Amino acid sequence: MALTDPGMAAPPLSLEHLPTPTGLVDLPRLQANCLRMAERADRLGVRLRPHVKTHKTAEVARLQLAGRATSITVSTLAEARFFAERGFADVLYAVPITPQRLPAALELARRLERFTLTLDHPRVAAAAAEAAASADLRLGVMLEVDCGAHRCGVDPASPEAVALAAQVAASPRLELRGLLTHAGHAYACPSLAEVAAVAGQEREVTVTLARALRQAGVGVGEVSVGSTPTICAVDHLTGVDEVRPGNYVFFDAFQAAMGSCGLEECAFTVLTTVVGCYPERRTLVVDAGALALSKDAGPTHLDPHCGFGVVCGAADCSPLPGLHLASLTQEHGTVRARTPQVAAAFPPGARLRIIPNHSCLAAACFDVYHVVDGDRVLDLWRPCRGW
Amino acid sequence: MALTDPGMAAPPLSLEHLPTPTGLVDLPRLQANCLRMAERADRLGVRLRPHVKTHKTAEVARLQLAGRATSITVSTLAEARFFAERGFADVLYAVPITPQRLPAALELARRLERFTLTLDHPRVAAAAAEAAASADLRLGVMLEVDCGAHRCGVDPASPEAVALAAQVAASPRLELRGLLTHAGHAYACPSLAEVAAVAGQEREVTVTLARALRQAGVGVGEVSVGSTPTICAVDHLTGVDEVRPGNYVFFDAFQAAMGSCGLEECAFTVLTTVVGCYPERRTLVVDAGALALSKDAGPTHLDPHCGFGVVCGAADCSPLPGLHLASLTQEHGTVRARTPQVAAAFPPGARLRIIPNHSCLAAACFDVYHVVDGDRVLDLWRPCRGW
Repeated sequence: MALTDPGMAAPPLSLEHLPTPTGLVDLPRLQANCLRMAERADRLGVRLRPHVKTHKTAEVARLQLAGRATSITVSTLAEARFFAERGFADVLYAVPITPQRLPAALELARRLERFTLTLDHPRVAAAAAEAAASADLRLGVMLEVDCGAHRCGVDPASPEAVALAAQVAASPRLELRGLLTHAGHAYACPSLAEVAAVAGQEREVTVTLARALRQAGVGVGEVSVGSTPTICAVDHLTGVDEVRPGNYVFFDAFQAAMGSCGLEECAFTVLTTVVGCYPERRTLVVDAGALALSKDAGPTHLDPHCGFGVVCGAADCSPLPGLHLASLTQEHGTVRARTPQVAAAFPPGARLRIIPNHSCLAAACFDVYHVVDGDRVLDLWRPCRGW
Repeated sequence: MALTDPGMAAPPLSLEHLPTPTGLVDLPRLQANCLRMAERADRLGVRLRPHVKTHKTAEVARLQLAGRATSITVSTLAEARFFAERGFADVLYAVPITPQRLPAALELARRLERFTLTLDHPRVAAAAAEAAASADLRLGVMLEVDCGAHRCGVDPASPEAVALAAQVAASPRLELRGLLTHAGHAYACPSLAEVAAVAGQEREVTVTLARALRQAGVGVGEVSVGSTPTICAVDHLTGVDEVRPGNYVFFDAFQAAMGSCGLEECAFTVLTTVVGCYPERRTLVVDAGALALSKDAGPTHLDPHCGFGVVCGAADCSPLPGLHLASLTQEHGTVRARTPQVAAAFPPGARLRIIPNHSCLAAACFDVYHVVDGDRVLDLWRPCRGW
C-alpha cells in the first residue's frame, strides 16, 4: 500500500479505501479529549504529565501537552528512547526499574534534560546509587507507593516505606524527586461514587506519607498520582503536584461503562470488514479478531455480557445496539445480531467499526494509526513498539 | 542491541544476557512437536497442511513440513505474501475471502503454483467468478462448512450448502477444490473424551456432505479438517484428505490443560524479570504484562482460577507451582506466591519464564523470537506481522 509508505504524505483517502483491520484515530475526538484533560488539570491546580503508553506517538503527546511542556510518563525504556529522540526532554519511567536496566537509565539520564526512574525496593535503591556513582551521575528517583491497588509500591503505613525514602534521600547519588502512586483498583469499582472514593484514597494516602516524611526530615519533592478514571472523578487534589492519566486520549468501551466518558468521545476504533454473514444463526463474522482488538474482557464486573467491544457504523461511528461482539479468536470476531434481518443487512464486504474494550491494548496491535476526520484519512502516525 | 540486528548471525549468547520481556522458542521441543505431528498425520493417512498463523515464520514452517512439501494454511493475505516470498508454493487462505480482497487473491493466484481461497457465501462466489473472469484466471476454492463451531461456514444440512457447492462447481472460473472445516468448539470441551467426540463430528459432518455432493454429481475435490486438539484426539480420519493443525508447534497452557500436550512440551515461553517483590503481600510483579502475553483468559472452563500463564524457572523452564500469574495489566504481570518466603526468593532482577495461555497470541506480541536450547541462544527468527 502506497499509503503505508513511511516516506510519503498521506493523500486524503476515504475510509472505504483502507484495508482492514485498521486502527483509526478520530482527530476531532482526540483533540477534544486532550483539551478537556489539560483544562481539568489546570482547574485541579496540578501539572499534567500524561502517560504516553496508550498511544506511544509523538503526535498525540504533543496534543496532550499543547506546547506547554515536554513532560511525559512512559512504561518502557523503549518509549523513553523513542520520545527522547523526538524532543521530549522530561521523561518519567513509571515502572519500578530493575538492576539490569540501570545502564540504560544512566544513558537516558545523560541524554535528557530530566529523566526520572521509579523504585520501591532497598536493594534496587542501593544498586541505583552504586551505578550512578560509577557513572559519576546523579539519578532522579520517584518512590512508588501502594495506595490500594496492591500491584507495585511500598506499603505507605510500613516502617519500610520511611526507611526506603530516607535511604534514597540520604544517598548523594540519588535525588528523591517524590512519591508516585497509581490507583489501578479504580478499574474494579462498581460505580462512579466508588471511583471518586478511590481517587480520594489515592490522593490521601500519598499526601499523608509525604507529610509524614517531611515532618521526619526527609525531603520528598513532589506527589504524583493518577489514572484516567480517578482524575475524571476526583473533586480536589490538595497536596498533589502532578497527575499522570493516559487512557483519556482515546478512552474506550471500559471507560465509557465506568462513566469516565461517553461512547461518542472514544477516539480509537478498529475498522473491520464482514467476512461471514449467517442470518439463520443471527451471526456475523468480522476480520477484527484478538490480534486487532486484544482479548481484554472489558468491564465484566459491570456487565458480565459486555462482549469484546462496541460495534458501530463504519461511516459515523455510532453504536449499533443490534450487534454484539460476543467472542474473538485470532483473526475472527463473532458478532451476534438481534434478529436475522439485522445480520442480513451486513453481507460479506460490509464495513463496521469497533470501539475496543481497552484502547491501550488495541492500539498496540497496529504498527500505524490512520488518523481520520469523518470518513477522510488525514495522516498516518507511527507508534513506538517493543521494549 | 546488536543481537536484534536483522543482518547479523546470532552469537551463542545465554538467556541471562537477553532483555525482557522476550519471546523464546525452545528448539528441541519445537522439533519434537513438529516430528510427532508429521508422524501422526502419516499414521492417520492424511496430508499435513499446517496452519502457520501460530508462529508466522518460514523457519518453523520448514520444520513442520520437513522438506516433504510446501503446502501451508494461512490466516491473512499478509501471511500468504510473506510465505510466497520464501518459497512456499501451495498456500490455502482459510478465512472467508471478502470482495475487497479478490484483487490480492488474483495476484497470489498468478504468483503461486497453487493458491486456494475459502468462501461460504453465494455473493462472494459470484464476485470471485467475475474477478477471475476479468483477470482471465481460474481461482481455486474451498467451501467452508460449519461442523458445530458456529463461527464461519455453511450449515452442512441446509439446501444452501448444496446450492453453493453446485454454484462454485458450475463456474468455469472457479475450481471447487474441496470442503474445509475447523472444530473450534473443541476448545470448550471439558474432557479429552469430548474433544474426541468433537473430532469425530468434525470428520463425519464434512465427509458426509462431500459424499452427498458427489452423489448429486458435484465434484468437491478434497476434505480438509483440523485443529490441534481434534487432531491430537481423533482415532481415525477415514474420508479426510488433509489436516490443518497449527498450535501444536508451540502448544501452550491451554492445550496442556486440555490434555493435548504436557507442559514440558510447550515450546514458546516469555522470559521476564521481576520488577517488584512484596513478600508481606505474597506478591511479585514481573515485566511480562498484557503486551507480552496477550490477555487470553485461558481454559477457565476447566479451571476458573487458571490465571494468565504458567510461571516457570528461567533456566530449566520447569513449572513453579508456588507462583501463580493472577492478573495482567499493560506492562505488569502480578504473581501471587504461596508464602512470603516463596515471594522473597525472587527479588527485583530475578528471572522467570511464563508458558502463555495461548501461544498464537503471545507469539504475536514479538517482532522477533529468540531461539534457544537450554540457556543458549541459537538464532533469531522474524515472523510476519500485520495484515
